[in-house]
Amino acid sequence: MNVEFSERANRIKASEIRELLKLTARPEIISFAGGLPAAELFPLESLAEISKEVILQEGKTALQYSTTEGFNDLREVILKQRLAKVGIFATLDEIFITSGSQQALDFTGKLLINEGDQVIVESPTYLGALNAFLAYAPSYVEIPLEEDGMDLDLLEEHLKSGLKAKFLYTIPDFQNPSGITMSLEKRKRLLSLANQYDLIVIEDAPYAELVLEGDQLPPLKSMDTEGRVIYLGTFSKTFTPGLRIGWVVGHPKIIHKFIQIKQGSDLQTSSLDQRIAARYMLQYNLDEHIELIKKVYKNRRDVMINAMRASFHKDITFTDSKGGLFTWVRVKETMDTKLIMEEALARNVAFVPGASFFASGDKKNYMRLNYSCMPEEMIEIGIRRLAEVLNKYY
Amino acid sequence: MNVEFSERANRIKASEIRELLKLTARPEIISFAGGLPAAELFPLESLAEISKEVILQEGKTALQYSTTEGFNDLREVILKQRLAKVGIFATLDEIFITSGSQQALDFTGKLLINEGDQVIVESPTYLGALNAFLAYAPSYVEIPLEEDGMDLDLLEEHLKSGLKAKFLYTIPDFQNPSGITMSLEKRKRLLSLANQYDLIVIEDAPYAELVLEGDQLPPLKSMDTEGRVIYLGTFSKTFTPGLRIGWVVGHPKIIHKFIQIKQGSDLQTSSLDQRIAARYMLQYNLDEHIELIKKVYKNRRDVMINAMRASFHKDITFTDSKGGLFTWVRVKETMDTKLIMEEALARNVAFVPGASFFASGDKKNYMRLNYSCMPEEMIEIGIRRLAEVLNKYY
Repeated sequence: MNVEFSERANRIKASEIRELLKLTARPEIISFAGGLPAAELFPLESLAEISKEVILQEGKTALQYSTTEGFNDLREVILKQRLAKVGIFATLDEIFITSGSQQALDFTGKLLINEGDQVIVESPTYLGALNAFLAYAPSYVEIPLEEDGMDLDLLEEHLKSGLKAKFLYTIPDFQNPSGITMSLEKRKRLLSLANQYDLIVIEDAPYAELVLEGDQLPPLKSMDTEGRVIYLGTFSKTFTPGLRIGWVVGHPKIIHKFIQIKQGSDLQTSSLDQRIAARYMLQYNLDEHIELIKKVYKNRRDVMINAMRASFHKDITFTDSKGGLFTWVRVKETMDTKLIMEEALARNVAFVPGASFFASGDKKNYMRLNYSCMPEEMIEIGIRRLAEVLNKYY
Repeated sequence: MNVEFSERANRIKASEIRELLKLTARPEIISFAGGLPAAELFPLESLAEISKEVILQEGKTALQYSTTEGFNDLREVILKQRLAKVGIFATLDEIFITSGSQQALDFTGKLLINEGDQVIVESPTYLGALNAFLAYAPSYVEIPLEEDGMDLDLLEEHLKSGLKAKFLYTIPDFQNPSGITMSLEKRKRLLSLANQYDLIVIEDAPYAELVLEGDQLPPLKSMDTEGRVIYLGTFSKTFTPGLRIGWVVGHPKIIHKFIQIKQGSDLQTSSLDQRIAARYMLQYNLDEHIELIKKVYKNRRDVMINAMRASFHKDITFTDSKGGLFTWVRVKETMDTKLIMEEALARNVAFVPGASFFASGDKKNYMRLNYSCMPEEMIEIGIRRLAEVLNKYY
């Protein structure tokens, strides 16, 4: 048997993180690798009750095929509870439900990218987005991150000298992997550049509500007067990732085409999961749940940052993240964090080496650390072990 | 704002069926349109109990991220209960879980099709497959169906004269839309042709277990000695479609690449839905449930076929389906069933016009009727109304 994969399939690689997660499943491992929310905070009792009620009371529809754009009550409650409160005022024809926001990333590539099209990404950026787009063979234009978000001077230079990009992809809040947040000033300037140069902006906002310090900044979408921002939201970090529920907000013309893409891709997101999520939002208070999550994550972040300050060599730098799940560590340029990872794993500590977060894959001296899913005492032990590995090189 | 969709996105159209389902949601409509299983047979009480137990007992994993290839227990129980019994003996590295088998169709296109590649399909065939593949711009080679499946003489002629197809797509059992089943003889001959001409075969088997008369024939995959058959299964017709659980069985090398594709496309199928399905399979008896479904569908089919025999003009022909959900009606060549559909809808009866089931879309004198989700008395009334509409033309 001879099977010849498509060129597209040959471009697709396994995600380093997903592969790593397998290695780090050993119980003795202190893992800073995944982007997992803390499972001990999932509202199990209310969800158990709700799932039973949904099946008993509306099972004939909750287990049947349903519409591609998603369950109306769910879309309405997301519009009202999650979007209106951050200044995004949209209507039902401007939102559809995806199977997690990874699917929204794939659909974005499917919707927009012809082979060779230029796509602007932050450097570094979420590797799952890079991999999703890669299937559609874009050419990446990387814009480095500064402390307050993308280097917009550089972006403007590119645009001025004629860069025609299919879209710009950004994670403005507590970015994955860097933990960096785009300042309000930069958000406004980015939008104004987008308007001036007719650029579509993909705003990926999985961490936006996980504010651990300071205020939540307005999403780009809330300031979008031209319908050029496509906003991606998800319950994976604020509620549960296992239900696989995300949403896309955009111009009706764009949403309409996305729905056609979804028809061919998986028909619809789980009817049951959508109804469970909707009922939870309507009967319980997700905002209160998010407050609880934030309290726990803030303590874990503080412990991690303090432990790094206390034990890492002074030349090792890291993001003092104000929210989200990650901090981003920079070591000596001569060091390769993939090799460091092997040493760390030998001491039962895991993280994600930074190279795969760069579209060009060329920066080897970064590592992403997650603080959301390990108890505080394990974070302290893990960072101490990591310090022993890293400090040797200084 | 200017948005330029990809060429791929511009090829994608809304599925006629999904659009129709919206029209036919009015309660007064007698709908033979969808491919919906009978919702009144869903095992609601056991599923309600199970969902509650899964969340209470294993919620921390059931609501968390999990592996891309799917929940091990689910894959194991599918291998054991659904596949081994039809002669498909596979191992864990030969199966992965998809979000319904529509996703498997999309992934098949993503895995195999380069623009312009030839893909062999039955004529007619499932329009959701045609649409899924279309995103990847194949060129379709249509092989007409005979009463016992594809015209293999014609296929052989094509292959002999040098046709190099990327794959052949077939629904051997109770085909959608035609209701036709490929005979055992043709199954063997198709495989032997595939071996001789090094052809990959996609075997889509959503209806295989819904045998209403006679015996279940062995799947192509069970006779595949060269790993060239990719088998697609689903719970959508035998259990519930709302959970969105399908599976793909194939050579480990193919499954491995599929899993990479799934990573970028949606990371994983709902952890909760997978665990609910697995627990149901382990604690209850799906075979018994399928027996119940078959009994109900057999009665409904009999009522529909008898009503058509009694009331349709003698020149209107239709498939005497031995299983699955559909019968396929052929009217005069001068008739266009899209126009007939308007007349039928005016009498509150719906069906799917046949043209979209042909890759070339050129045959207008067919209609697909579903008998699985309407009570018997409604089927009788609906067919009588349809007869009034159709017989006028004779």
